[in-house]
Amino acid sequence: MSKLPNITTSIFSVMSQLANEHGAINLSQGFPNFPEDERLLQISERIIRENIHQYTPMAGLPSLLEKIANQTLKQYGRKVNTATEMLITAGATQGVFTAINTFVNHGDEVLILDPSYDSYEPSVLVAGGKPVRVSLNDDYTPNFNRIESAISNKTKMIVINNPHNPTGRIWTESDFEALETILEKHPQILILGDEVYEYITFSQPHISFNTRPKLVERTIIASSFGKSLHVTGWKVGYLIATENLMFEMKKVHQFLVFSVNSFSQHAISEYLDVVDFSEVSKMYQRKRDLFQNLIKDSRFELMPCDGTYFQVVNYNQISSKNDVDFAKELIVNHGVASIPISVFYNDATDRHMLRFCFAKTDETLIAAAEKLNQI
Amino acid sequence: MSKLPNITTSIFSVMSQLANEHGAINLSQGFPNFPEDERLLQISERIIRENIHQYTPMAGLPSLLEKIANQTLKQYGRKVNTATEMLITAGATQGVFTAINTFVNHGDEVLILDPSYDSYEPSVLVAGGKPVRVSLNDDYTPNFNRIESAISNKTKMIVINNPHNPTGRIWTESDFEALETILEKHPQILILGDEVYEYITFSQPHISFNTRPKLVERTIIASSFGKSLHVTGWKVGYLIATENLMFEMKKVHQFLVFSVNSFSQHAISEYLDVVDFSEVSKMYQRKRDLFQNLIKDSRFELMPCDGTYFQVVNYNQISSKNDVDFAKELIVNHGVASIPISVFYNDATDRHMLRFCFAKTDETLIAAAEKLNQI
Ligand SMILES: CSCCC(=O)C(=O)O
Ligand SMILES: CSCCC(=O)C(=O)O
Repeated sequence: MSKLPNITTSIFSVMSQLANEHGAINLSQGFPNFPEDERLLQISERIIRENIHQYTPMAGLPSLLEKIANQTLKQYGRKVNTATEMLITAGATQGVFTAINTFVNHGDEVLILDPSYDSYEPSVLVAGGKPVRVSLNDDYTPNFNRIESAISNKTKMIVINNPHNPTGRIWTESDFEALETILEKHPQILILGDEVYEYITFSQPHISFNTRPKLVERTIIASSFGKSLHVTGWKVGYLIATENLMFEMKKVHQFLVFSVNSFSQHAISEYLDVVDFSEVSKMYQRKRDLFQNLIKDSRFELMPCDGTYFQVVNYNQISSKNDVDFAKELIVNHGVASIPISVFYNDATDRHMLRFCFAKTDETLIAAAEKLNQI
Repeated sequence: MSKLPNITTSIFSVMSQLANEHGAINLSQGFPNFPEDERLLQISERIIRENIHQYTPMAGLPSLLEKIANQTLKQYGRKVNTATEMLITAGATQGVFTAINTFVNHGDEVLILDPSYDSYEPSVLVAGGKPVRVSLNDDYTPNFNRIESAISNKTKMIVINNPHNPTGRIWTESDFEALETILEKHPQILILGDEVYEYITFSQPHISFNTRPKLVERTIIASSFGKSLHVTGWKVGYLIATENLMFEMKKVHQFLVFSVNSFSQHAISEYLDVVDFSEVSKMYQRKRDLFQNLIKDSRFELMPCDGTYFQVVNYNQISSKNDVDFAKELIVNHGVASIPISVFYNDATDRHMLRFCFAKTDETLIAAAEKLNQI
């Protein structure tokens, strides 16, 4: 008997492979194709011989925990205790899985907004829990009537991903207020806040759960350096939560992975002394604007993109094919790989939407746009 | 409600920290204190600029999978399909957790030999399963009558760690035959074979599940490079299993961690071209012999050590304190840190045994022995 009977090969692997086979420009899986920061590479080279290749402490390298705590204080005004409220994870994916598998018991319900990143639902299923999908509005903003109606006495957790992959939408002040009003009546519900794109927002600043006193006590925040530092392969992320929640997650983490790659923790720890996170949003805003400008006269219709490095487009004017078939056609016939948004819905809702990753060199974006403009 | 109500701080962390506070020689947690192989460091330095910092494929870097398959063929004569039978994990701990959490459902029983490494039982509890502990014989060899009696119609898996941490014992041909006879009657039982010390055996060669045709179809083998390549902080391990088992584990792995640190996978992949695993056993056999010779006239009594880098000793002649208290006394009064064996038992059985890690420089072992000889 399988715990995940409906899971097949990851869409990210399928699309990347098809892109490779057809020599297509790969705007599917979310990872940058430009070089890492020279300063990070220099740190990496320098520390190789610094005796950093054995286990770090279970909860993470102390200097890295401290740098993250400093950054959290500076960015959000929240003072985090490094000894009791933080945990370094093997990427945010492991953080999300650990949070869910620590708190979700057999039969517990977990609210997941639809569409959503593909790891939440399987993590709940492995825990023996029941995912309850709640549709976002048509413009991908949260629908709080639906959220409230979906709550039952079995609801253990709600997963909120902000900035939102795949849609690029971000939560506003009034979204948070609406959530606070609802959850006040349900003190038992935990929040898992996936904020891996916290440093990639545009029109409005990112509102972190770190800044919500009414919610923060019950929230587990998952984040990652893969996205903001352009090293998706390093798999270094972190969890922040109050002591009573963190205490339980550390117990699971200890036996799930014990500790995280030591070299990468050391390198990131040093790099955090010099990196300026505000540059990250600026850099990606420029790329978003470039990509939007390049295809604004094409037959693709741009959806709003307030954060993440993903641009969603509608192809209503081009084809009546479903989005998976159209995404394949786009690779095979037109040489550009994307991700069909339907894969992020529980029931594969097809709204003729595709996701393009713009974490690419300008040359790549220009070359892709040239092809998209010809369609 | 906690899934792991009885877990407190890891004994490895407790003892290492106490050792630090008292400036004691740390023979507790299992990690080498000698430098990594110069060739591995050189490879690491060289590849930093080789564009290796984004996601590897979900199941692992293809070249690393291939090298492991070649090594498995050379060492054990087993031909493993890299595409369908292998998975790179974030250390063997993540491999063990993934195997257990893929196959153990709510209420399933898992046989765990007592004493055993500390991650198996919590991994079963997180899966909602029931750990069933089966005592080893007094000399730490397996007791097959007890194993057979412990099997019920709910038994889903048996965990076998060979070479065995903490006791340093290894399984013989007749042990495997006894297991084969028992399991023939129970085709539904899976085996999780934790072989992380496969390259560290002394008197007799390691017998891997890879070489047992009667068992291999139902066995998941977990291994790791941390131990054999002296980089415990890198957290690169792997699972080998037949396609139908691996298919299910990959689904869980994809959402548990997605992929493993790219840099370390690249470095190990290149290093496997030059490393000679037979040197590993030789090096550790020399260290075992050195340590045994150094303390053979002390009041500690040496237990057999056929594999791993751990030497178990009995202190009956020295103290009647329980082993946790005695281990602390050994740090505070005598300056040597060890691990009390009782922590590896479900019911904290105290047989006055301590575990010393001899993966240390000769100087460290000599200095520790000097202190132990004075007791
Ligand atoms: C973990 S692979 C997928 C990368 C990613 O976050 C995305 O493309 O959405
Ligand atoms: C994962 S920390 C423990 C290291 C180890 O394998 C041991 O000391 O037994």
